[in-house]
Amino acid sequence: MKFVIQRDHLVQSVQDVMKAVSSRTTIPILTGIKIVASDEGVTLTGSDSDVSIESFIPKEEEDKIIVDIQQHGAIVLQAKFFSEIVKKLPTDQVEIEVHSSMQTVIRSGTSEFNLIGLDADEYPHLPQVEENNVFTVPTDLLKAMIRQTVFAVSTSETRPILTGVNWKVENNQLICIATDSHRLALRKAPIDLAEDAIYNVVIPGKSLNELSKILADNNEGIEIVITENQVLFKAKHLLFFSRLLEGNYPDTSRLIPNESKTDIVLKTKEFLQAIDRASLLARESRNNVVKLSTIETGDIQISSNTPEVGKVVEEIKSQSLEGEELKISFSAKYMMDALKALEGTDIKISFTGAMRPFIICPINDDSILQLILPVRTY
Amino acid sequence: MKFVIQRDHLVQSVQDVMKAVSSRTTIPILTGIKIVASDEGVTLTGSDSDVSIESFIPKEEEDKIIVDIQQHGAIVLQAKFFSEIVKKLPTDQVEIEVHSSMQTVIRSGTSEFNLIGLDADEYPHLPQVEENNVFTVPTDLLKAMIRQTVFAVSTSETRPILTGVNWKVENNQLICIATDSHRLALRKAPIDLAEDAIYNVVIPGKSLNELSKILADNNEGIEIVITENQVLFKAKHLLFFSRLLEGNYPDTSRLIPNESKTDIVLKTKEFLQAIDRASLLARESRNNVVKLSTIETGDIQISSNTPEVGKVVEEIKSQSLEGEELKISFSAKYMMDALKALEGTDIKISFTGAMRPFIICPINDDSILQLILPVRTY
Repeated sequence: MKFVIQRDHLVQSVQDVMKAVSSRTTIPILTGIKIVASDEGVTLTGSDSDVSIESFIPKEEEDKIIVDIQQHGAIVLQAKFFSEIVKKLPTDQVEIEVHSSMQTVIRSGTSEFNLIGLDADEYPHLPQVEENNVFTVPTDLLKAMIRQTVFAVSTSETRPILTGVNWKVENNQLICIATDSHRLALRKAPIDLAEDAIYNVVIPGKSLNELSKILADNNEGIEIVITENQVLFKAKHLLFFSRLLEGNYPDTSRLIPNESKTDIVLKTKEFLQAIDRASLLARESRNNVVKLSTIETGDIQISSNTPEVGKVVEEIKSQSLEGEELKISFSAKYMMDALKALEGTDIKISFTGAMRPFIICPINDDSILQLILPVRTY
Repeated sequence: MKFVIQRDHLVQSVQDVMKAVSSRTTIPILTGIKIVASDEGVTLTGSDSDVSIESFIPKEEEDKIIVDIQQHGAIVLQAKFFSEIVKKLPTDQVEIEVHSSMQTVIRSGTSEFNLIGLDADEYPHLPQVEENNVFTVPTDLLKAMIRQTVFAVSTSETRPILTGVNWKVENNQLICIATDSHRLALRKAPIDLAEDAIYNVVIPGKSLNELSKILADNNEGIEIVITENQVLFKAKHLLFFSRLLEGNYPDTSRLIPNESKTDIVLKTKEFLQAIDRASLLARESRNNVVKLSTIETGDIQISSNTPEVGKVVEEIKSQSLEGEELKISFSAKYMMDALKALEGTDIKISFTGAMRPFIICPINDDSILQLILPVRTY
């Protein structure tokens, strides 16, 4: 194998596939990045066997030569070293050449690295994904849907299925749901499906976080292919595979109340900042709990109290308040997470009593919903 | 105590004195910030008993009212909570009022905090520093002198005196020296002294790092007062006290060679980047060692080798090379630290053989010197 490549393209591709490489893998060859040089260009692959990322660097783009392939071939190079090296090479052009014994020479200016490579034939094959049913989501929408749900997955392995986000496709709609059993985040969006397919899968939260980091901020379409045990995201020159979590995701629809007894409309930012301040004196106590009360003026009060430190009271103007009086306690952290995930300047919170889950939505937007379970205080 | 203060001034002062507050102190009241309201303004103090910082907020500055003192008094508030609270308050004006039982109310907009204060009389007094001999150093020079030496202090407590920087004042010159016994950094600058005073003290590296962070980037003069066991730095509205380390600093002058056998002049940045790359394959082995060799062309070669990973060879053009041929090994980390501390585009390295300490200086500048002990390789 021998090629000369533009350093910035190589650096970007290495950085992308590195997102899948883990130093804690039990399969030694997966600490490496696979590099394949073919007629079309150079393909890099990184994998931790849960997530696999393939990045392709074409020979030419927009009439500019990016790679000059001089000899086909493949090699695996230790990711930790290779990624650091390419970042720090002194010149814009980099030559990579593999000698007979898998000795790999990386040349740039007067800098010359000799790395001991591994046999590319030993590298695991990527999952085979049959592309029968593909649907497309714009990158920015996909990133928003991930951001607005993935924070609510469970971080505990006691119920592994809850560490993933439930993706359902039905009635030409994609619905993403995450819950750790204390709070729930739901986001839906219409999609175009060729056939009337139905999916119900669980994608690891970790995979979605990595995917989100790697995707550019634009509205180009990402093709999504869901199979029995894999999901594949296809962007330009990039393939992102993730295994799916096994097991049935709990039916969350019953959790979401249909009616409400108290509805409050608030300015999102003002409410978020007040919760943030109130949580300062709640941090020490269990669960970071603050109290919300309706007051006579039709506005609301947020308060918290840690006896040895002090207490805080915040008053917030409500845009509207309808229904019963209310005193309810909840985790400030969950509320802040939910508010940060919402878009829009105004939100509506719908309560059905101090002991029942309550929901937070942007006003006039039913595509996103955040649900929080209150905390019983004594 | 009762006053109304501009929030941004309060935030800045709290942030400054927080640099001295440690959560790991054994003296409970030192987890607090002392606040004193007097006719002139508000004074905040933070201390971990090694370092004490006092920040003064005047009533008025440039004809703008900053504090409106309504009642004199003093209180100590828990630093961790108070600093977070002031940062997040909603309005530009903050009212702070202490009630009879040391209950302290902080009001800003519709936000109201009640903190349990501590008795300010219990707060330790700041060191008494007699200002007999004061000298002045411009802030930017002081920060440079700290930056160029403090990185070389020892991080090990086996010889506590080496965790400090040796400050010597003699012949109207300030000399700062730090060494961890593997490398040494020296920086000197002329100063104006009223009398012909001589000082030889050791200031904890940690104190100098904190001081450096707190000082603005300008060339206003900082007054420095050195006493038997304290040093005081006086900037505008700011006092920074540090205790001195006890014991005698080793005489480092004998370490620095007067003659040299090989002198090499190099471009600082090019050399630093080559060392950085060579260190990538040296990281795994003991001490992060790279090898420097003179080559026939009159240039130099940097190399390193980790058998299980690979090797790297870098060639660097020398601006000039005089004297004997040389092969020498040293820590890449120490070399990078030294190069980053130097100013100027060209540096001169003077060697006196493969087993002797060598020195690195900017060309035509003897105010700064970096010394590194080589590593014996087998």
